[in-house]
Amino acid sequence: MYSAQFTAETSSNGIIERDFTVGEVTGALWSPASPTSESGRAPLVLMGHGGGMHAKAPAMTGRAQRLVADGGFHVATIDAPGHGGRPRTAHDEQEIAVMQKAMAAGEPVGPIVVRYNAHLAERAVPEWQATLDALQELPEIGAEGPVGYYGLTMGTAIGVPLTAVEPRITAAVFGLFWPDPLAETAKQITIPIEFALQWDDELIPREDGLALFDAFASKEKTLHANAGTHMELPRFEADSAVRFFTRHLGRPAT
Amino acid sequence: MYSAQFTAETSSNGIIERDFTVGEVTGALWSPASPTSESGRAPLVLMGHGGGMHAKAPAMTGRAQRLVADGGFHVATIDAPGHGGRPRTAHDEQEIAVMQKAMAAGEPVGPIVVRYNAHLAERAVPEWQATLDALQELPEIGAEGPVGYYGLTMGTAIGVPLTAVEPRITAAVFGLFWPDPLAETAKQITIPIEFALQWDDELIPREDGLALFDAFASKEKTLHANAGTHMELPRFEADSAVRFFTRHLGRPAT
Repeated sequence: MYSAQFTAETSSNGIIERDFTVGEVTGALWSPASPTSESGRAPLVLMGHGGGMHAKAPAMTGRAQRLVADGGFHVATIDAPGHGGRPRTAHDEQEIAVMQKAMAAGEPVGPIVVRYNAHLAERAVPEWQATLDALQELPEIGAEGPVGYYGLTMGTAIGVPLTAVEPRITAAVFGLFWPDPLAETAKQITIPIEFALQWDDELIPREDGLALFDAFASKEKTLHANAGTHMELPRFEADSAVRFFTRHLGRPAT
Repeated sequence: MYSAQFTAETSSNGIIERDFTVGEVTGALWSPASPTSESGRAPLVLMGHGGGMHAKAPAMTGRAQRLVADGGFHVATIDAPGHGGRPRTAHDEQEIAVMQKAMAAGEPVGPIVVRYNAHLAERAVPEWQATLDALQELPEIGAEGPVGYYGLTMGTAIGVPLTAVEPRITAAVFGLFWPDPLAETAKQITIPIEFALQWDDELIPREDGLALFDAFASKEKTLHANAGTHMELPRFEADSAVRFFTRHLGRPAT
């Protein structure tokens, strides 16, 4: 088992940002600068980034800041295999080339994304579990507190299989992905879910997005479908995710 | 043109509640006890109640209190024709009897509700417009401020035709209704919409609910679909409506 090694630390606006490694995995941890509970501990939200992005991409840092400032949470991201500064395998290079060729030719990328992300999930799930083990060793997080997962697009492709095997995750925000073969795994998930879908998604057919939402076995699940294309998810959905985690992970007593 | 006649006034927790009449229409107006803007004015949200309910049913008073306390809005409800203390016509009595008979026999009520609510909407739309005229005469509301509409079930059956003909309404929350014939009217509506749907609605088939959401011509529209039956709409959707109106009607400067 690895411990988290912190490699850099900055602080601004009441938020501490620390880069870390867990074995070969690189990531970032955002935390409240001052404890927000008597115990000094706060719940942890894991965030998975989208394809081609990385642990500190603007969408990740923006969401992390809202979760820390408005929810009082710790927020952790890691670079997916072959993403950020992490090395690519020959298989990664090959799949990325196929994807780029399809995009350039205006051909559907869905089948390639689905296949490649399923492969990445197999590598990423044990990395997330090792990261969670290491982060729960930190006194300000601890092994007892609730854990959330928040990831769209590739973050959903990795997050759904992670959540299915990881009982420490008790609430999750997913969305913007195809149902096959993810829906089979989603049927095993019973924790509260918030799910984002773009009503005019040019990549994921509407029926496919609805089918993935439908597959979750959760008694508490909410679909947020917004008018607009794949990339036009409204910013206010990030605020909605903060409230979702606050409802389900519990806002630390202040 | 009628003016609003106030018939009763109570105040608690910073909220003034006034019963009013506009001609033969009875209603209630909730307002902040202290002005929340320099002008002393605040936006107005009209709320339509569900079938068999009335202007001061618990769902109405609860939502009104959140809208006033958290949004700083004025909130008005009126009793629909034949509802609350308002007289029923012979036609009302007949349709209600048909509906109760269908319910007792376990037969589908959808077609009867749709037909009867379309009839009620024809009577209610001019009543809402006269009420809005009268309320905009009040100095604390005024004729210039933005107006929202918030109504589910029968409140949607009345609110969609109202919004289609009423340019003063600039944002609306709808939901929980059948698409035929309302979808045709929804196609004329272009203002921002938030739309509630219950994923396991035993009265309104899922495809029907999705079809009504789809029909709105609005560039900004959001579907909130929650797991659960027709009556199980989560309470947090009322908070979401407050935030929706705050985004679109503008929170008064404090």
